[in-house]
Amino acid sequence: MNLIEETVAAVAPPDEAAMRDARDHQARLTKPPGSLGVLEEVSVKLAGLAGRCPPPPPEPAAVAVFAADHGVHAQGVTPWPQEVTAQMVANFLAGGAVVNAFAAQVGADVTVVDIGVAADLPPAPGLLARKVAPGTADMTGGPAMTLDEARRAVETGIGISRELVANGARCLITGDMGIANTTASAALIAAFTGLPPERVTGRGTGVDDATHARKVEVVRAALARHGLPAEDADPLDVLAAVGGLEHAGIAGFVLGAAALRVPVILDGVIAGAAALAAAALAPDAAAAWVAGHRSAEPGHAAALAALGLRPLVDLELRLGEGTGALLALPLVQGSVRVLHEVATFDSAGVSEKEA
Amino acid sequence: MNLIEETVAAVAPPDEAAMRDARDHQARLTKPPGSLGVLEEVSVKLAGLAGRCPPPPPEPAAVAVFAADHGVHAQGVTPWPQEVTAQMVANFLAGGAVVNAFAAQVGADVTVVDIGVAADLPPAPGLLARKVAPGTADMTGGPAMTLDEARRAVETGIGISRELVANGARCLITGDMGIANTTASAALIAAFTGLPPERVTGRGTGVDDATHARKVEVVRAALARHGLPAEDADPLDVLAAVGGLEHAGIAGFVLGAAALRVPVILDGVIAGAAALAAAALAPDAAAAWVAGHRSAEPGHAAALAALGLRPLVDLELRLGEGTGALLALPLVQGSVRVLHEVATFDSAGVSEKEA
Repeated sequence: MNLIEETVAAVAPPDEAAMRDARDHQARLTKPPGSLGVLEEVSVKLAGLAGRCPPPPPEPAAVAVFAADHGVHAQGVTPWPQEVTAQMVANFLAGGAVVNAFAAQVGADVTVVDIGVAADLPPAPGLLARKVAPGTADMTGGPAMTLDEARRAVETGIGISRELVANGARCLITGDMGIANTTASAALIAAFTGLPPERVTGRGTGVDDATHARKVEVVRAALARHGLPAEDADPLDVLAAVGGLEHAGIAGFVLGAAALRVPVILDGVIAGAAALAAAALAPDAAAAWVAGHRSAEPGHAAALAALGLRPLVDLELRLGEGTGALLALPLVQGSVRVLHEVATFDSAGVSEKEA
Repeated sequence: MNLIEETVAAVAPPDEAAMRDARDHQARLTKPPGSLGVLEEVSVKLAGLAGRCPPPPPEPAAVAVFAADHGVHAQGVTPWPQEVTAQMVANFLAGGAVVNAFAAQVGADVTVVDIGVAADLPPAPGLLARKVAPGTADMTGGPAMTLDEARRAVETGIGISRELVANGARCLITGDMGIANTTASAALIAAFTGLPPERVTGRGTGVDDATHARKVEVVRAALARHGLPAEDADPLDVLAAVGGLEHAGIAGFVLGAAALRVPVILDGVIAGAAALAAAALAPDAAAAWVAGHRSAEPGHAAALAALGLRPLVDLELRLGEGTGALLALPLVQGSVRVLHEVATFDSAGVSEKEA
């Protein structure tokens, strides 16, 4: 077996007994049953992933920002110049971006992965040089990647998840940077969900009406060029046809975490698109994923619905980088902390409600 | 002037120039304009409150849990025995409740204020003994409090905000504990918004259909007894008629914070009801308030709409104690941290989008 097959084979379904234990324990804690709403479900999910209740605290946390460029940029889908990808990587490494501020706020480490930036990037602390290719090709003219590149990018992502966990991380967070990557995300989401391009293509950084209309047509043209959606399409072929190197990397990253039974908080639409590819490879992997937030991109809501994930934060963010997922980290950690630290009615001597 | 009048007089409208500065600064930061969604508005609001951009970091944070009992408990509005209020206070002080777990997660201090628990509580570290009365009277038979008690409870809340800020807190968080306090909250919200009891009365801890129906009728009867809603009602009279001692205390707490220009994160329906009373006394005070979350109680959404506040977390929580507001703390802190730490396009050498 190659690394991808091996990882997919290692993904197991959630442990139903641990989930039952977590539900039972939640019901004994000193609070009205069910009063923590969605966070009770998060704690139950993480118990199922870990195979025990309480599950281990999801900390320390590490965000991996997968950075790559996109050949489809040439189609005029965004007013931002392509060099902004490399400039923002430098900003991440200097600690000057929003992902750095939010990571500092919630206590997460930031690692940047050059999986496909068009420019040569100088070595720097915090940067993992794992370039599979200097950006993708234009998906409207042919496949964005070769199948070999897509495989190597997925394997790279699996490797990053293993490295971060080996270095102590117990909660992984997806991040991304890549000018034009909401276009590739829309194409992936349309390919995996079967929804029409106009339903899943958004304004990304906030493009105007004309650019948005062009973006929809570019997605439509790329899908037609590659015969997508197609029921029997191999997920790796779909990634190669219309994905980005960061999408493939994130797909591997979230698969690798699932194989290690370490939770992942998914960021926005790029992570949602990548997770659809990963779920197509290993449906049980979704047991490791928590949707950190719902972004303003319409394709993101569609991806989350297809994945069966409910977002924890919903504040019209549309930045990427891992920012929305980082905001959800204290909520995820808090949900597990409840199972560890809150007293039961018995232990605290608190009366229960009368029948 | 008495303390309430003095505090109301000290509440100032937000500083429009500082808000403009914050909006301008957000637009220069290395991210697409507007891409932090609702959190940009939070940062602008806190700049307006502080009167400068960036506003001071909203930390350290302190949650004050106002605990009190309710005479309306005798009407069978909840299956939980009244002694649970005092038992949960003991649980808070022992560190065994969800508020403690969430406060530990996000780095906030917990103070418990006995403003009206029916039982005598032994002194303990972390407990402020400020009992105004040993619970309210049954609002269906007469006023829940005398006007003097309501005043003293509001003054107590003002004093707590001053103490916590004097001790270093730069962000205050409301918390509450009081068996039957969602009934008093529904009555207050109906009185201040004019909405009918059935629209604002929820299931609290999760009561059954029969208890819920009784609760609606109890709220209706109490409002009729006191001639509420009434256009010209004095907010203190409304608090005295159908409020709780913790509602009056929280009303003072959020007014006191506004007078000191320190932000407050509001928790759920109890805080929402109290904030309506505070806003009726000093409409500009809302400039200091951030809605931490929206609870599952229908009256809470009505209160937030009347206050013009958008909740940051929306996860079907219905626990109280300050738990929902604590989850929002890192979001509020993160929004301000962005103004302090994130690079501008100029400073980071990142290209802006093409016109």
